[in-house]
Amino acid sequence: MQEISEEIIEKIHRYWQAVNYLSAGQIYLQQNPLLSSPLQAEDIKPRLLGHWGTSPGLNLVYVHLNRLIKDTNAEMLYVCGPGHGAPAIVAHTYLEGTYSEVFPEVTEDEAGMLKLFRQFSTPGGIPSHVSAHTPGSINEGGELGYSLMHAFGAVFDHPDLIAACVIGDGEAETGPLAASWNSIAFLNPARDGAVLPILHLNGYKISGPTVFARMDDDSLKDLFKGFGYEVFFVEGEDPHHVHRQMAATLDIVYGKIRKIQHSARVDHQLHAMKWPMIILRTPKGWTGPKSWKDVPIEGTFRSHQVPLTGVKENPEKLKMLENWMRSYHPEELFDKNGMLIPELKALAPLGDKRMSALPYANGGLLLKELILPDFRYYGLKIPSPGCVEAESTRNLGKYLREIFTLNAANKNFRLFCPDETTSNRLEAVFQVTDRCFMEKTIDIDDKLSPEGRVMEILSEHVCEGWLEGYLLTGRHGLFPCYEAFVTLVDSMVSQHAKWLKTTAELPWRKPIASLNYLLTSHVWRQDNNGYSHQGPGFIDTVVNKKSSVIRIYFPPDANTLLSVMDHCLSSKNYINVVVAGKQPELQWLGMHEAIEHCKRGASNWKWASNDDGEPDVVLACAGDVPTLETVAAAALLNELLPELKVRLVNVVDLMSLSPTAYHAHGMSGEQFELLFTNSSPVIFAFHGYVRIIHDLVHGRPDPARFHVRGFMEEGTTTTPFDMVVLNKMSRYHLAMEAVKRVPGFQQKADAFINFCEGKLAEHHQYIRKYLDDMPEIKNWKRKSTSVK
Amino acid sequence: MQEISEEIIEKIHRYWQAVNYLSAGQIYLQQNPLLSSPLQAEDIKPRLLGHWGTSPGLNLVYVHLNRLIKDTNAEMLYVCGPGHGAPAIVAHTYLEGTYSEVFPEVTEDEAGMLKLFRQFSTPGGIPSHVSAHTPGSINEGGELGYSLMHAFGAVFDHPDLIAACVIGDGEAETGPLAASWNSIAFLNPARDGAVLPILHLNGYKISGPTVFARMDDDSLKDLFKGFGYEVFFVEGEDPHHVHRQMAATLDIVYGKIRKIQHSARVDHQLHAMKWPMIILRTPKGWTGPKSWKDVPIEGTFRSHQVPLTGVKENPEKLKMLENWMRSYHPEELFDKNGMLIPELKALAPLGDKRMSALPYANGGLLLKELILPDFRYYGLKIPSPGCVEAESTRNLGKYLREIFTLNAANKNFRLFCPDETTSNRLEAVFQVTDRCFMEKTIDIDDKLSPEGRVMEILSEHVCEGWLEGYLLTGRHGLFPCYEAFVTLVDSMVSQHAKWLKTTAELPWRKPIASLNYLLTSHVWRQDNNGYSHQGPGFIDTVVNKKSSVIRIYFPPDANTLLSVMDHCLSSKNYINVVVAGKQPELQWLGMHEAIEHCKRGASNWKWASNDDGEPDVVLACAGDVPTLETVAAAALLNELLPELKVRLVNVVDLMSLSPTAYHAHGMSGEQFELLFTNSSPVIFAFHGYVRIIHDLVHGRPDPARFHVRGFMEEGTTTTPFDMVVLNKMSRYHLAMEAVKRVPGFQQKADAFINFCEGKLAEHHQYIRKYLDDMPEIKNWKRKSTSVK
Repeated sequence: MQEISEEIIEKIHRYWQAVNYLSAGQIYLQQNPLLSSPLQAEDIKPRLLGHWGTSPGLNLVYVHLNRLIKDTNAEMLYVCGPGHGAPAIVAHTYLEGTYSEVFPEVTEDEAGMLKLFRQFSTPGGIPSHVSAHTPGSINEGGELGYSLMHAFGAVFDHPDLIAACVIGDGEAETGPLAASWNSIAFLNPARDGAVLPILHLNGYKISGPTVFARMDDDSLKDLFKGFGYEVFFVEGEDPHHVHRQMAATLDIVYGKIRKIQHSARVDHQLHAMKWPMIILRTPKGWTGPKSWKDVPIEGTFRSHQVPLTGVKENPEKLKMLENWMRSYHPEELFDKNGMLIPELKALAPLGDKRMSALPYANGGLLLKELILPDFRYYGLKIPSPGCVEAESTRNLGKYLREIFTLNAANKNFRLFCPDETTSNRLEAVFQVTDRCFMEKTIDIDDKLSPEGRVMEILSEHVCEGWLEGYLLTGRHGLFPCYEAFVTLVDSMVSQHAKWLKTTAELPWRKPIASLNYLLTSHVWRQDNNGYSHQGPGFIDTVVNKKSSVIRIYFPPDANTLLSVMDHCLSSKNYINVVVAGKQPELQWLGMHEAIEHCKRGASNWKWASNDDGEPDVVLACAGDVPTLETVAAAALLNELLPELKVRLVNVVDLMSLSPTAYHAHGMSGEQFELLFTNSSPVIFAFHGYVRIIHDLVHGRPDPARFHVRGFMEEGTTTTPFDMVVLNKMSRYHLAMEAVKRVPGFQQKADAFINFCEGKLAEHHQYIRKYLDDMPEIKNWKRKSTSVK
Repeated sequence: MQEISEEIIEKIHRYWQAVNYLSAGQIYLQQNPLLSSPLQAEDIKPRLLGHWGTSPGLNLVYVHLNRLIKDTNAEMLYVCGPGHGAPAIVAHTYLEGTYSEVFPEVTEDEAGMLKLFRQFSTPGGIPSHVSAHTPGSINEGGELGYSLMHAFGAVFDHPDLIAACVIGDGEAETGPLAASWNSIAFLNPARDGAVLPILHLNGYKISGPTVFARMDDDSLKDLFKGFGYEVFFVEGEDPHHVHRQMAATLDIVYGKIRKIQHSARVDHQLHAMKWPMIILRTPKGWTGPKSWKDVPIEGTFRSHQVPLTGVKENPEKLKMLENWMRSYHPEELFDKNGMLIPELKALAPLGDKRMSALPYANGGLLLKELILPDFRYYGLKIPSPGCVEAESTRNLGKYLREIFTLNAANKNFRLFCPDETTSNRLEAVFQVTDRCFMEKTIDIDDKLSPEGRVMEILSEHVCEGWLEGYLLTGRHGLFPCYEAFVTLVDSMVSQHAKWLKTTAELPWRKPIASLNYLLTSHVWRQDNNGYSHQGPGFIDTVVNKKSSVIRIYFPPDANTLLSVMDHCLSSKNYINVVVAGKQPELQWLGMHEAIEHCKRGASNWKWASNDDGEPDVVLACAGDVPTLETVAAAALLNELLPELKVRLVNVVDLMSLSPTAYHAHGMSGEQFELLFTNSSPVIFAFHGYVRIIHDLVHGRPDPARFHVRGFMEEGTTTTPFDMVVLNKMSRYHLAMEAVKRVPGFQQKADAFINFCEGKLAEHHQYIRKYLDDMPEIKNWKRKSTSVK
C-alpha cells in the first residue's frame, strides 16, 4: 500500500473538522446551525447536556476507517465502546446520509442539521451514547464494558468482516472488558473475521484519571503482548501529525490482518502472527476550548461533558464557544444549504460499505432461519406419567446435535457456555462438533479444536457478550448456564432487553434471533455444591423487563423441554429463559401431551386430579422439582383423603399467568378461572422466589387465596428432598396446606396431618443421623410418587 | 534469609502428604479413616462428591506459607480463589486444631477424622468449596472471580497483613478477576498491607483447558509485567523439586514485599519496585491416580472432581484408591489415635498466627465502632413541607466528610465508587480526603493522592469486591452507585447475603459492619442519559435475599436520608440499600419529623391528608419522585375535590410493609390497618417495579385494593415529568385512579378527570413540540405542588 498523500491527509482533517463541528453543535445549538451570523445567547439550547470529551477521538478513528474502507473495499463494523459517544457517531451517520435515510425528517440541509442538533440529549430526542437509534451500531453504549466481546461475537463466522472496536480507557477498567482480551484464544482466522481493538487513552473518566492512561508505553506493550496482540501506538496532540500516523498505522494493521487470514485460509497456518491492535493517545476534548480563567479544559476531565457551561448567560464564554466552533471553518465544510461539500463527501464509502449502513449491524437483514429437526423424533416414550426416569437435558443434547448438523453449511449456530456443556448433560453435541480453542492443544485434550462451535470460557460475561454480538449480526445461539451464576449477567440481559424493546419500535431495524437461555444445575439440585449455588434470582430480573420481549418457561420434563426449546429457537426478538433440570427425574408427558401442554402454557393435569370440574383445592406448580412434589402431594391426598377434590395445574409458560393485557401469552379471565376457579384455594409450588407468583395473580379474583411456596433462601449441601423440606415446599407441606385451606375440612383431616408430620419427623431424623448412618444413595432421591 | 534445609523440605513434603491424604479421605471415606485395615467397599461413601483436582496445589501453597509464617512471624491471610477447594483448606484448618476449636465435635483423633471425612459434601455437612464454615476464610468460594479483589480489600489499611491469594486458572478467565489486577494502582505500601497473587495453572477447568495455562511463560511474564507485577515461576511435577523452588521463591517474594514496604514507610519511596507475584504450574490432581485403562487422569480435566469413580463397585478401582491413599503413608503421618505426629504438627504456626485462626479473617473480632457525628447537625431547616428545594445527596456529603474526619485516626472508613463521587454530589468529602491513586499524577489532576480514602475505579465489580474485603476484615464503608449499574453486582451481593445469613448461624463468626449502598442517579432522573440508565432492578435482587439480612430504604428528602444513613452506618451484618435522588428536589420533613418517620418506617403524612381518620382512598408512596407526584396528587384532589377524603402514607422503610413474621421491620396487622385501613382503595406510587409491592401486600386484608404504579420499562431521554407520565405514575394518573377507585365517586368527578386528562394532553403537546419550541429550562422540572 502506498503512502497517503498530504492532500488526502488534509481532506481527512477537514472531514474530521466537519464531524467535530457537528458533535459540538449537537451539544450547544438550537439555532444558527451553520453559524451564518454571530452566535447569540438565544442560539444556545436552554439546557446543556451531553459529552464532548470522547468525541474528537471517536471521530478521528471513524474518518480514518472511512479512508481505509475506500482504499481497500473492506467491510468494517465500528463498535463504539467509550461512554457517551453519540455526538460523534451520530454526526458521521448524518454525513454519510444514513441518518436521513432512516429518520427522513432529519434532512441533509440546514433545517435537518438543526433537527440533528436539537434532538440530542433532549426530550423527544436521542441519548448521549450510541444506541439502537444509531445506524451502524450493534451496541447500547450506556453501560460500559461490552464493546470488545460484542465485536468478537460479531465476527465469529463472518470471515469477511473486520470489527474496529474503540475501547475507552475508562471502559477498559471494567471486568467484562478486561476478560474480553482473551477472546483471540477463540477466534479462528480461517473461518472468522477479525477484530481490531483500538484502545483510546484520552486520560480521564468523569473526574479521575484512568489506570491505563497512566501506564507507560512499555507497560502497555508488555501487557497486550502477553494477551497475544502486537501493539501499534498512535499518539500526539498535533492533528496533522496524528493523522499521518493514524493513516499509516491503519494500513499496516490492515495488512497484518489480511496476512494472518491469508496464512490461515491459504497456508493453513493458524498461529502465524500476533493480532494487531492500536493504542491511541490523544487529549480528552481535543480541539475544544483550551481553558477557562487559566483552569485547563482540553486534555482534562473538565472536558468530559459540556466543556464550557453557562454560555447562554456569559457573553465571554459565548464568544469562546463561537471561536471554538468557528475554528473548524464550517463555511468551508458545508455549502449554503448545509450539505457537506462534495469534495469531502467523496471521502466516505458508499451504500452498504458505509459503516452506518453496514448490513452486519442490522443483523435481521442477514438472518437465515435456523433449520430445526423435528423435535418429536427426540421425544421419550412415556407409557404413563411418572414411570420413566430420565435426564431431561441429556435428551435435549441430541436435538441440539442435530441442529449443528443441519445448519453446518449455514455456519450460523453456536453454543456459548462457561465450561459446562458436559456438566449440563449436553455432550451429545460433541459427536458432531468440538469446543473451540485456538491455543496449543495437547494429546489429552478432549473435543477441542479451532473448528469447534461450542464456545466455552469461564466467564458468563464473555459468553453473554459473544452471544449478543453473534445474534445482533444475524445468527442463532443458545446459552446453557448454571442457574445461580447466570445472575452474573443480570445487567447485560437488562441492556439487551432495552435494545430489543427499542429496535421493535424502529421499523428499519429488522428482527433478530431470540436470546435463549437454558438454566440448568438449578437451585433444587445442588446436592454437593450447596448454598452458594442455589439462586433462582435471574427469573426475577428477566420478568421485570418489558413484557413484549420476555418469555419464561419451566418445562417439567424432557418432552416439554424439547417442545419449548424448539419454539424458542425459532422465535425472534425475545429473551427466552428455559429452566430445566439435568438430573435423572420422573417423566410425565408423552410427546403429544407435551406439545398440547406447551401450547396452552398451563393446563389441568387430569390424570393427577380427581376434581370432576369443581375442585375443593387447586394444587399448582411450575418447575420440575415443584412438579414432582405437587404430583406426589396430589397422589397422597387422593390415596388418603379421596373425598377431597383436588385439581393439579401445571404451568410451563410462566407468563401465561399474566393478564392478557400485560403479556401476549397471558390468559384471559375466563381461561384463568377455568383452571384456577374464582374462589378455591390454590396451593402453588414455584421453582423460584414466591414474589413473582404473588405479583402475577395480583389482579385475578381473590388473589389472597393463592398460597405460594418457593425458594426462601434456605439452602445447604443436602439431599434434594431435604431442600424442599427446608423451604417448606415438600409434598407433605403442600398436602397439609391444601387440607388446611379447604374450609371446614381440617377437622376431618387430623389423621392426614398427623401422617404428614410423622413423615417429616422421619425425614428430620434421617437427616440428623445422616452423618452417623451414611445411608445408601437411593435414599437421596425420593422420586417415587404414589401415581400408578 | 538462609536456604531451606533438605530436612525442612522433607518435613514440608510429609505435611503436604498429610493434607493430601485428608483431602482424598474427605472425598472417599466413610470408615477406616486411617486405613488401619485393607480398604473395603463398605469403607467408601455411598455417593462420591467433591473435587480433588485443585486440592494438591492449594495444599502446597498452604504448607509453604506455614513455613514462611513460622520463619518470619508474618501475619498472612490465605484467600482461596479456585473453585471447590474445601477438601484442601478444611484439611489444613483441621491439622492446625482450629477446626476442632470452632466445631468441637470434629475432634483431633480418629473419630474426629471420620466426622471430617463424612461431613464433606454430604447432607448435614459442608460444601465442596471454602465458605463461611471454613475458619480463616473470608471468601465464599462458590462463585468464582472475587478472590483477588477480596484480598486487596482485606489489606487496605491493614499495613501488617499480607494476603496470599491463590487464583485458579479457570477463575482467572472471569471478568471480575481480570479487572482486579489493576488493584495495585490503588494500594499504598506505606499505609496498606500487601497482596501476593499466586496464579495456579493446573491446566483445566471442568472439561476444557484454561487460556492462561496454555500461554507460554514469556507471554505470562509480559502480561503481568504490564500490569505492574514481577513474575516468579514455580513449576514442575516432581514434588521435591517444586518444594525447593516454592520455599526459595516465597523467601524471595516475601523479601521483596518487605523491601517495597520499607521503601515506602521509611524512605517515602512509593514507587520503588514492582510487586511480586507467583505463577505456579503443577498438574491438576497431582499425586492422585495417574490413569485408568490407559486414559490419563492426573494432569487432566478428569481429575477435576472425583478422579476415580465407581470404586465401591469395582474392586480394581478400590485397590487403586487404596494404593493412592497409602502412597502418602498415613501410618507415618498420624499416630494410632489419628493425631498428626508432633514433628509435623510443629511445622504449623500457633495461635492467632495460624491462617485458619487469623483474627483478620473473622473481621468482627477487630471491628471498631464507626464514630458518627450527630447527623441532626447536617439537617436542613424546613419551615413547612415543600417550600425548600435541595439536592439530598449533597447534604449527605457533608455528613460523610465529618465521618472521615472523626475516624481519621482509626483508619477504618472508605468510600468505594465507580468514579461518580462528584457526579453523585458527595464532593464535600474531598475537603478532607482525596481519591486514592498510586500511578503517576500530573498538575491538572484534582483531589488525587496515594493517601486518599475514596476508592474510584470504573468497575462496579471491583468496588464491590474491595468493599466486601474491607468489611469482612473488620472495617466500614459505603458504596455510592448509579442505580441502574449497581445491577452489575447482583450476583456478588447475593453471595454476600448468603455469607451474612450463614455467619449469623455460626457463633464464632463475629458480626461485621453492614454492606451499605447509596443508589442515586436513579431511574426517574436520567434526563439526558435515557433508557439505558433507567433500571431499578437491584431492589428486586436484594428484596429476595434472606429477610434477616436485608433492609431497603427510600428516604424522600434530605433529612430522612441523613437519618436513614446514620442508622445504616451503625448497623451490623445487614445489606442496606438506600435509594435517594441527587437532583434538586422539594424537601418535606424537618429533622424531628424525619427521625420520627424513619423510626416508624411508614407514616401518615397528616399535613398532606384530609381524611379525619376515615379515608375514602389512601395515596401511598415510596421513593423521592413518587413522593413528589403523590403529594401533588393529594394537593390536586384537595383543591378540586375537597369532599374526597384522602390519606397520604409515605413509606421510607420498604420492609415495614412485610408481615412481622417475615421481617423484623414488618408491621403488625394492626399497624398496617391503622395506616392503610382494611378496605379503602390504596393507590401506591413506587420507585421501582410494581411487583415488589404486589408481593408485600399479598397477605394483607384484601390485597386486590392495592393499585400500584411504578417503573414499567418506559424510558427515554426526556424530562422528569415526562418520565412519570410515560410510566403512568404522574400526579394526574394517581389522582384519576384514586377518584375511579372510590365506589360511587366517579360520577361526581367527571370534571376532575377531564381536568387531569386536559393537563396530560397539554403535557403531550409540550413534549411533541419540544424539539420545535425548545422551551426554557424551568419547564423541565415541574416540581411545584399546590401544597401551601
